[in-house]
Amino acid sequence: MKLEPYYRKVFFYETDQMGIVHHSNVIRWFEEARFDLLDQLGYGSGFLEEEGLGSPVLDVACQYKTMVRFNDELTIRIGVKSNSSARLTFNYLVLHGDKIAASGETTHCFINKAGKIISLKRQYPMLYQTLEQLKEENK
Amino acid sequence: MKLEPYYRKVFFYETDQMGIVHHSNVIRWFEEARFDLLDQLGYGSGFLEEEGLGSPVLDVACQYKTMVRFNDELTIRIGVKSNSSARLTFNYLVLHGDKIAASGETTHCFINKAGKIISLKRQYPMLYQTLEQLKEENK
Amino acid sequence: MKLEPYYRKVFFYETDQMGIVHHSNVIRWFEEARFDLLDQLGYGSGFLEEEGLGSPVLDVACQYKTMVRFNDELTIRIGVKSNSSARLTFNYLVLHGDKIAASGETTHCFINKAGKIISLKRQYPMLYQTLEQLKEENK
Amino acid sequence: MKLEPYYRKVFFYETDQMGIVHHSNVIRWFEEARFDLLDQLGYGSGFLEEEGLGSPVLDVACQYKTMVRFNDELTIRIGVKSNSSARLTFNYLVLHGDKIAASGETTHCFINKAGKIISLKRQYPMLYQTLEQLKEENK
Repeated sequence: MKLEPYYRKVFFYETDQMGIVHHSNVIRWFEEARFDLLDQLGYGSGFLEEEGLGSPVLDVACQYKTMVRFNDELTIRIGVKSNSSARLTFNYLVLHGDKIAASGETTHCFINKAGKIISLKRQYPMLYQTLEQLKEENK
Repeated sequence: MKLEPYYRKVFFYETDQMGIVHHSNVIRWFEEARFDLLDQLGYGSGFLEEEGLGSPVLDVACQYKTMVRFNDELTIRIGVKSNSSARLTFNYLVLHGDKIAASGETTHCFINKAGKIISLKRQYPMLYQTLEQLKEENK
Repeated sequence: MKLEPYYRKVFFYETDQMGIVHHSNVIRWFEEARFDLLDQLGYGSGFLEEEGLGSPVLDVACQYKTMVRFNDELTIRIGVKSNSSARLTFNYLVLHGDKIAASGETTHCFINKAGKIISLKRQYPMLYQTLEQLKEENK
Repeated sequence: MKLEPYYRKVFFYETDQMGIVHHSNVIRWFEEARFDLLDQLGYGSGFLEEEGLGSPVLDVACQYKTMVRFNDELTIRIGVKSNSSARLTFNYLVLHGDKIAASGETTHCFINKAGKIISLKRQYPMLYQTLEQLKEENK
């Protein structure tokens, strides 16, 4: 699939008194890139809302490699690392020019409107297949 | 009424690269102080949730007087400035020692579970009277 | 001057449990639009950093008109409301389609590297004139 | 050492449209607990600032176990997981009543005023020993 990376400038309010981006914001950028990917795949906020489909974060990890600063222009690449009926793991690369600023992962389950955990494979097989394909391309 | 002011230390992630608290956070502290007041009055999150009562912010204003920094210990005083069936205005004073760090106001309406605007005076007369009393004491 | 408005999608993490954008974030968008304007004027983060020029917020006001939600596409218009040697006031309009989502103002002073208040008119006359021109066009 | 856990109520603005705390905030609570620990150890913000000692986050990981909501009262326990001259890893447990809401880790290096990486063991041996002791107690 031909997907665009997610582009993002650093906002002033994302810096802290060390003069660099506060590390917690990178976790938020992962989310931005994730929803941007879903948008590109045709499973954006409209779809999620209509279906009442939620994807809570089960765990998150981030490694900070180089400091990023106000107004730095970042490129965030996101891929599918693993995908099962119950668990989906994305991996992320935050690039600043040709340097890796940060890398990370988030793992999600899927819940319906009632808050019950569902199997993406069974209930949204097309989305599941799309994620499978992304996983293959990510190898 | 005997009410406690709201005490709050400044968190590291609330600073920005100027080495001071980012101004947007003071707006968030106002909210903390507001919910703390409601808690003290017996109309805390439990009450609000059970009743499905929401109080969206219609407008906010804040004047920044002196800079505050990481770990500064703040005292936030909140009062009722005006109160009608449709509108409630709180005012705030953020104190750092004996200095005023910031002052401000927020105005709210009230909505029910369905998102409809309601009259606090008619539907929650006791809460309304309590706010009236706070208004008198705030003069 | 031909300036572009600032475009911004609402991020998921900017919502709160009422299902709408938390009001404090609009204050942050004002800042984004402000730095975007400065970038367009040729006085972006590079200039500010090199000169050690800071513009602390002295006060902020925001009126919330209509609710905005996750993924809503917003257009933020910013103008110069008033400009003197010591004070600069911007006004803002946050548009969601043809609806006004919020409006507001921020007032700033200017400080040098040492934290001393400076006169923009005297020390940065070209930037001052540019802001004067924006003020005229904003009438 | 007799240390107090860190207590924290969930703020309204920390929730998202799923009605629960946005996961990125837990990363911020880790930081609050970390600075609270340093305060208790006598190495609070005053010490850090005077020494120009910084402790950037190299990596962070968080596992989310149960959802937390507005006004929930949390207890955050923090311990030293590993400690070397160049790396310090804390682990965290966020408790909501007797349930684990989240667990996690952060790893840090240490830098001086000039931004150079330093050895805590060599330059701050007493702080290093204190952390060693915490590590032993954490087993």
